[in-house]
Amino acid sequence: MSTIDVPNPLPSPKEDAQELKKAFEGLGTNEKVAIKILSRRTAEQRAEIRRAYAVLYKKSLLDRLQSELSGDFRKAMILWMMDPAERDAKLVHEALKKKGEKAMWVIIEVSCASTPDHLIAVRRIYRSLFFSSLEEDIASSSLYKEPLRGFLVRLVSSYRYTDDYVMSELAKFEASLLINAIKKRELHDEDFLRIITTRNKSQLKATFLHYKRLSGKSIDEDIDHHSSSQFANMMIRAIWCLASPEKHFAEVIRYSIEGLGTDEDTLTRAIVCRAEIDMKRIKEEYKATFKTTVTCDVIGDTSGDYKEILLTLVGSEEP
Amino acid sequence: MSTIDVPNPLPSPKEDAQELKKAFEGLGTNEKVAIKILSRRTAEQRAEIRRAYAVLYKKSLLDRLQSELSGDFRKAMILWMMDPAERDAKLVHEALKKKGEKAMWVIIEVSCASTPDHLIAVRRIYRSLFFSSLEEDIASSSLYKEPLRGFLVRLVSSYRYTDDYVMSELAKFEASLLINAIKKRELHDEDFLRIITTRNKSQLKATFLHYKRLSGKSIDEDIDHHSSSQFANMMIRAIWCLASPEKHFAEVIRYSIEGLGTDEDTLTRAIVCRAEIDMKRIKEEYKATFKTTVTCDVIGDTSGDYKEILLTLVGSEEP
Repeated sequence: MSTIDVPNPLPSPKEDAQELKKAFEGLGTNEKVAIKILSRRTAEQRAEIRRAYAVLYKKSLLDRLQSELSGDFRKAMILWMMDPAERDAKLVHEALKKKGEKAMWVIIEVSCASTPDHLIAVRRIYRSLFFSSLEEDIASSSLYKEPLRGFLVRLVSSYRYTDDYVMSELAKFEASLLINAIKKRELHDEDFLRIITTRNKSQLKATFLHYKRLSGKSIDEDIDHHSSSQFANMMIRAIWCLASPEKHFAEVIRYSIEGLGTDEDTLTRAIVCRAEIDMKRIKEEYKATFKTTVTCDVIGDTSGDYKEILLTLVGSEEP
Repeated sequence: MSTIDVPNPLPSPKEDAQELKKAFEGLGTNEKVAIKILSRRTAEQRAEIRRAYAVLYKKSLLDRLQSELSGDFRKAMILWMMDPAERDAKLVHEALKKKGEKAMWVIIEVSCASTPDHLIAVRRIYRSLFFSSLEEDIASSSLYKEPLRGFLVRLVSSYRYTDDYVMSELAKFEASLLINAIKKRELHDEDFLRIITTRNKSQLKATFLHYKRLSGKSIDEDIDHHSSSQFANMMIRAIWCLASPEKHFAEVIRYSIEGLGTDEDTLTRAIVCRAEIDMKRIKEEYKATFKTTVTCDVIGDTSGDYKEILLTLVGSEEP
């Protein structure tokens, strides 16, 4: 589901590092070269280029990009070049300082739209970078009130089973528990929270399928129909990120573009973080929901090298 | 703080495997040889012996021990030979099927008396062995009621910061929060739970020190004085396992020996699991609290090869 178009044959990390060095030298930086090379390498390959650059030039490639580039393009390139777990740890740490639902999205994305082992890697790096643990920082934040705070703590603390193991009877049973809680507007019900914060994703998908059969509507529609609190909104986001992250990220990209001005940080985050995961599905979802393409919207709202790197990460798309 | 007396010079894993093979052959097993070799090797060295045995004889050493040995001695030897994280995953999985405080001790030991990275390793192995995650199994267990269930889920889900980073002002402030909650018998207060389930161990030790200065009594004494619920008992266990696990394990050993009959499974668990961690401190605590030694009590309540392996793991002790 990745949109990263790795060239074949692939230059060695050393060759890439040398070409980047050349691009930085002389008058002005050749941003096109940086985009051409770096946006067409996987996370693993980018890490190798960073290592090769450090060995060859005794200097960090990230520092070099930091000093050579500027603006939104620089932010996007730096995020793209970071180790994905470190990137998420830093994004969530930033988000924890900010108020509002958009900041909470980041916590939910990192905890629900990642693999369990990626989440553990994020927590490990977070802990080593910031003198505290992620769950500790959420639990002690004054920005969140119960029951939202407890919900977010449980989401980031989960370490879900990863095989596609589904207990079908259990899915039916838990679907009926969820329906009852939603109709009674008891989203903070312990069973409700337990199911959403601990069950594995395959199990949850089966449960949500049974939900729709039993209720007639999907679980997110039902929550939206019965409750309108911030907690309910975040519950829907978590359900999306767990079972169909492309829905959430299509909305994130749309939100960052819609209306007056562009929210570049959000746009960058969504595209950089998902390019190697599910950008293809996000583009399909985007087209189906908003009757336009990610490519068209990015072209309409961005420019220059920043536009260039986003479009390369988004990948080719029929209009 | 380990009591494992590794010989110097150390035989190679291959030599150890060969000597074990010899011990298993012929009429009857030479249990003394198995004890002599295996109880004097670290977890890492035992893993190497298992690998060497498998390579040499195309058979698992654990299977061989399982078929050669019997009774409590076999249980102790098998637990001792398991990878520590796998051992804890299996112990906690067994404990989750049982009622009562003694079973809950195991959950608290694994979550609070281990390093954060060991806990993650346990959760990872648990997940691969049992088709579910540890927090999922606790959260969905019918043996636990709220608030105890939520407390246990949060304990096993934590991934505490590990450096000795202490915020002194925060420790003072949180000590006063704890005092208020305890005096009002509100141990399930959100702040209380947040502090115990997320703060790093060095921070908690500082907080408990301030607690004693402010209150005059230690936090465990105060909880015991003001509350007598099962939840309060488990909170004290968690506090001990976090800040002074030797207190908890000295009591566990004493409990398993005291009264009519011996609780061999509990005795084995405490000695096998702590031999390489803090058995020296446990012995000191035991002597100070119960005016006798672990050695004397083990001699009084066990016999044969079982006694032998426990005493070797406990290590030498002045009467």
